[in-house]
Amino acid sequence: MKIAIYGYGNLGRGVEAAVRQNPDVELMGVFTRRDPASLQTETGVPVYPAETVLDYTADIDVMILCGGSATDLPVMTPSLAEHFNVVDSFDTHAKIPEHFDNVDRAAFSSAHTALISAGWDPGLFSLARLYMNSVLPEGKDYTFWGRGVSQGHSDAIRRIAGVKDARQYTVPVPEALERVRSGENPDLSTRQKHTRECFVVAEEGADLERIEREIREMPNYFADYDTTVTFISEEELKKNHAELPHGGTVIRSGTTGEGGKYKHTMEFSLKLDSNPQFTASVLVACARAVARMHTRGIFGCKTLFDVAPADLSPLTGEEMRKKLL
Amino acid sequence: MKIAIYGYGNLGRGVEAAVRQNPDVELMGVFTRRDPASLQTETGVPVYPAETVLDYTADIDVMILCGGSATDLPVMTPSLAEHFNVVDSFDTHAKIPEHFDNVDRAAFSSAHTALISAGWDPGLFSLARLYMNSVLPEGKDYTFWGRGVSQGHSDAIRRIAGVKDARQYTVPVPEALERVRSGENPDLSTRQKHTRECFVVAEEGADLERIEREIREMPNYFADYDTTVTFISEEELKKNHAELPHGGTVIRSGTTGEGGKYKHTMEFSLKLDSNPQFTASVLVACARAVARMHTRGIFGCKTLFDVAPADLSPLTGEEMRKKLL
Repeated sequence: MKIAIYGYGNLGRGVEAAVRQNPDVELMGVFTRRDPASLQTETGVPVYPAETVLDYTADIDVMILCGGSATDLPVMTPSLAEHFNVVDSFDTHAKIPEHFDNVDRAAFSSAHTALISAGWDPGLFSLARLYMNSVLPEGKDYTFWGRGVSQGHSDAIRRIAGVKDARQYTVPVPEALERVRSGENPDLSTRQKHTRECFVVAEEGADLERIEREIREMPNYFADYDTTVTFISEEELKKNHAELPHGGTVIRSGTTGEGGKYKHTMEFSLKLDSNPQFTASVLVACARAVARMHTRGIFGCKTLFDVAPADLSPLTGEEMRKKLL
Repeated sequence: MKIAIYGYGNLGRGVEAAVRQNPDVELMGVFTRRDPASLQTETGVPVYPAETVLDYTADIDVMILCGGSATDLPVMTPSLAEHFNVVDSFDTHAKIPEHFDNVDRAAFSSAHTALISAGWDPGLFSLARLYMNSVLPEGKDYTFWGRGVSQGHSDAIRRIAGVKDARQYTVPVPEALERVRSGENPDLSTRQKHTRECFVVAEEGADLERIEREIREMPNYFADYDTTVTFISEEELKKNHAELPHGGTVIRSGTTGEGGKYKHTMEFSLKLDSNPQFTASVLVACARAVARMHTRGIFGCKTLFDVAPADLSPLTGEEMRKKLL
């Protein structure tokens, strides 16, 4: 199975690393909108200019799109799905239906297979919610994120005047998690579920009090949360906050039997040293499924909901029934 | 979607209860090998003698088989799969390949769809292992069971002379769980993973010391575990040990990146007030998928590995992408 990477940031490098753990997957190259001469891939695979991508339609089984959800993927995925089988990690939850329709049109009319919103949320967490809801129709879902770096919130802090750099950690409130795990099915406000920890490098002479106030009062991002702001040096940021750890927990608590007599709690959780590395690993497994579905003539836009789990695995049916069932 | 239940014990009653939570599923009846007049169903659905089952092939979309794995299902599932779409919860791990082949032959040759080994282990835990292995190829899996009643171990105690009744709880060792969760990837012996707690009702005048020794020294079942034996009265057993709670945890801990630089831990866990009630809920969701796959002409024996998660859900693709993705 030959794949290519389109976009070579953290996620693209993660895909490159993940390919090495999957002997049935071969990486033919990386496409970039930057000057290819300026890029050195970790494993030495060739780098091609993005504008030449259509010269390689015969060489690529699945293209893994590693652009951002804000502006890249809404354009990139539909336009590349006209020429390639594609996988993306589009994660703007509210815009998934629109993105799905655009990609579906492009992929279906050109007999390609596309899989969008792969990763862990959306992705594995969505799968957990779907399985849990299917087997326990009467119950309540909870999703907690963190402890981990939210890149959107870190960016929001960086846009404040006087801020040189910042890292924002989303942290689930332990008491809330415990209440949910106990099967209590509590109603939890935004503030009760997560806290936000901000580590900020200020420019010299900046008004720290103003920066802290602007962070804490920022609507949507911080105003509804208990937020702590810690000013640190640039060295400390580089030393202690260079990576992008993340994770979280999906819990469904429900009942069965006469009068809801029996309580059942299901939980799926992730603790990830690197968000982009792990997301990339999911994308590569999804590329395997996309290649197989395309061979079977299954065209159009799909999500992990539509993928038989066996299609993600390099094992044969016999092997997986023996080892994993 | 019309289903029927074949076998009306704890699991069959669980299916009957689960149907009420799924408005798209209708229960046409229960088949039993006992005298139908001796059975009163919880919801008043009709009871038919097992030997008349072939009179109802036109009335049933999927038959849910609620027999035991030891002697019932190895015969029941292949023979009924010649006439019906079927779902079973066959859970003798070592014999799954053989059972799969037998059911596959019967179902495929008669253009039926069968799904075996549905439940939580095998079932949802198997799915967790498959997803986890697919996205993290380099790592190690652990499965812990409990705290919960093992019916096989309870039965083994009951077969000892002088034992009137017994309940055996399998309990994961908390330290082992913590070491696995931390990503340490320890090698754990059988004894290090689980302990076994036995609550035993002895016959009057029985030699308690001998019973305890026979339990502790029983090969396969108890000899490799730290086992505690507590003698209790029949009343106490009925009062405190009447239900069949269970649960457990699947953890995979793996690495990605150059030299395994990044560590990732995935965990799926269940805490169930009633093992048969929860297993039954999984069976009903699987029956939905079987009915849909059959409509699409997908015949033969399947497991949850072969089922696109969307097929387990009553929601439309649009609804689930909006609500759950």
